[in-house]
Amino acid sequence: MKLYTAKIAPNPLRVEYFLKEKGIFDEVELVQVELATEAKEPGHQKRHIFGRVPVLELDDGQMLSESRAICTYIEEIYPNPNLMGKNGVERAFIEMHDRQVEFHVFFPIANWIRHSHPGLADLEIPQCPDWAASSEATARKNTAIIDVELGKKPYVAGDNFTIADITLYCALNFARLGRFKPWEEHANIAIWREKIMERPAFS
Amino acid sequence: MKLYTAKIAPNPLRVEYFLKEKGIFDEVELVQVELATEAKEPGHQKRHIFGRVPVLELDDGQMLSESRAICTYIEEIYPNPNLMGKNGVERAFIEMHDRQVEFHVFFPIANWIRHSHPGLADLEIPQCPDWAASSEATARKNTAIIDVELGKKPYVAGDNFTIADITLYCALNFARLGRFKPWEEHANIAIWREKIMERPAFS
Repeated sequence: MKLYTAKIAPNPLRVEYFLKEKGIFDEVELVQVELATEAKEPGHQKRHIFGRVPVLELDDGQMLSESRAICTYIEEIYPNPNLMGKNGVERAFIEMHDRQVEFHVFFPIANWIRHSHPGLADLEIPQCPDWAASSEATARKNTAIIDVELGKKPYVAGDNFTIADITLYCALNFARLGRFKPWEEHANIAIWREKIMERPAFS
Repeated sequence: MKLYTAKIAPNPLRVEYFLKEKGIFDEVELVQVELATEAKEPGHQKRHIFGRVPVLELDDGQMLSESRAICTYIEEIYPNPNLMGKNGVERAFIEMHDRQVEFHVFFPIANWIRHSHPGLADLEIPQCPDWAASSEATARKNTAIIDVELGKKPYVAGDNFTIADITLYCALNFARLGRFKPWEEHANIAIWREKIMERPAFS
């Protein structure tokens, strides 16, 4: 399998950590795609109709994209350790937590950074400063809500490490580009993040 | 089961169509939540930490939120007709198509409408006109890409009707609030939409 990826971009990183947790990262060939140029060309648009990364090329040549869908595939082929739920009901609740941190923490952080960071001006044309400011406020407010939640349980989705922890970890790390380090402001996030960073896949 | 929902909002509608396709819509009690006021109050935030709809209250009192996660649960409890894939590999490819139309068509449409429509000013404070304009351009461009894709296959994810068709249908209908009717501009979308509207769940 080949993974089309891009440096710094948080979505491919989610898949890379997922592969590391499964212990199969070294079996996948990484192919770097330049987001501002190459991703917009027809060659990459054959891999992803909207020109995004990550894309996983399967051994039969099929192209599978969207970070979470790639993880669903990997989970099927390499079921251990389980990261997305052992049955439909578990899958639903983990998907709930994963989408909550994705939509309400990761997206506001991503919109804030993409619309304000000079280094990402080629990716958002035009950058919208008002939207960056509004997204920053949402990101800070929702990060505080997640901090409260992490005071009630060891991991984002409950007792076990899951894909939702990978999503939150990548989201919060991306906030550093906005000089926001939630683990310096929120005690429960700090404890949780230390625990994540002790895992072999994250060290 | 109770579904906390809101009129006009496109995300609860995705769950409502999913329930209708499963033939169990009448078994679920609908509870309307006023988004601009009630959703922001502690009572609803006990149901959803970020105060959103839809939320499905299970018979044991557990709260399950995020539209797609609710569908994952319903699919497990009521497997027929299958709408999300019969095994992990099918689930992954359907999830890819679902997220592609969700992230690249539905979100730009939603951002455009939420940041420009006077009737939604209470939901996005502040509304960002530049972001609305940029999102409208993305929505129109990506809708044209989806039109090309729908010329190659009968449904969004391939040969069969799936959850991804529900997502696209709700997204495009929401665009009417911006006076954009993609089916009047794009022939393949028009043919596909006619087919969807002939289904009992959509009539």
